[in-house]
Amino acid sequence: MLDILHRIGVVTPDPGKVYEALTTVEGLAAWWTEETRDVDGILQFRFSAGGFDMEVIEARPSERVVWRVVDGPEEWIGTTVEWDLRQDGDYTIVLFAHRGWREQVEFMNHCSTKWGSFLMSLKALVETGKGAPAPDDVQISDWH
Amino acid sequence: MLDILHRIGVVTPDPGKVYEALTTVEGLAAWWTEETRDVDGILQFRFSAGGFDMEVIEARPSERVVWRVVDGPEEWIGTTVEWDLRQDGDYTIVLFAHRGWREQVEFMNHCSTKWGSFLMSLKALVETGKGAPAPDDVQISDWH
Repeated sequence: MLDILHRIGVVTPDPGKVYEALTTVEGLAAWWTEETRDVDGILQFRFSAGGFDMEVIEARPSERVVWRVVDGPEEWIGTTVEWDLRQDGDYTIVLFAHRGWREQVEFMNHCSTKWGSFLMSLKALVETGKGAPAPDDVQISDWH
Repeated sequence: MLDILHRIGVVTPDPGKVYEALTTVEGLAAWWTEETRDVDGILQFRFSAGGFDMEVIEARPSERVVWRVVDGPEEWIGTTVEWDLRQDGDYTIVLFAHRGWREQVEFMNHCSTKWGSFLMSLKALVETGKGAPAPDDVQISDWH
C-alpha cells in the first residue's frame, strides 16, 4: 500500500482551531471546497470534476481525525485520510497521510501536489481567516 | 522503498523551457535555491539549514532528468529525484518522483510538502519569469 504524506506548521497556539477547520462543515468549506455538506454523518465534498464522500472514523479533539473514503474516484475508495495534530511552540504541527493507494498511478501524483496546496489553504485559513477553497483553489495543472 | 510523488502542468508549449530550468545552474537557482553551483559535474544546492549534492545520472533533453543524492541529510543519501516531462496540449506535464526513502519519518512528510511548493515555484518561473527560490521560498512550517 502507498501513502501520500505532508506536514505543515500552522502559526497558532491552539490546535483546537485546526481541529475545528477539519471537523465542521463551515471550517472545511473555508479551505477545501465551498460545496461541503454533512448528510447523515457522511461528509460530502464536491468539486467541478466530481467529489468525495467521507465517513469520519476517528475524531479526538485537538489531536487526531481520520476519514474513510466511502465514495468518489475508484482509486480513493477504501483509502483513509489521517490528520494528526500537536502543539510545538508557536505552531500547531499537522501531519497528514492519505493512506492505502493501491498503485502509483499518475492521479496519485496529482492528488499529492493538490493536497499540499490545500494544506497551505488550511494554514492560511487558520492564520489569516481566509483560505482558498474550490472553486477558487490554486490551479496546479490541466487537471486543476 | 517509499516515494514522494507530484504532478504539475506548466503552461508552455515547449518542454525545453522546463528542461532548461532543471539542467542549468541559472534555471535551478531561479526556482529552488539561489545558492546553486555546479562543481565538477556535481550539482550543489545550499539552504540556510544545509543542502544537497546531486549527481546527474540521466538527462534526455525535454523528456527526463534523474539525480542521485550523493550528499545531504542521511535520509536523502542514495535516493533519486526523477523528472519526467511530456507535452499535452498547452501544458508541459511534469511528473516528479523522489524515490527510495527507507522509512516514513516526519522529515519525509515535510519534504513532500516542500517539494510540492517548489514545483509551484518552477511552474511560476517558466510561466512568468519569476520563481520563489530559497531564501525567499514559501514557508510551510517551523522547519521552513
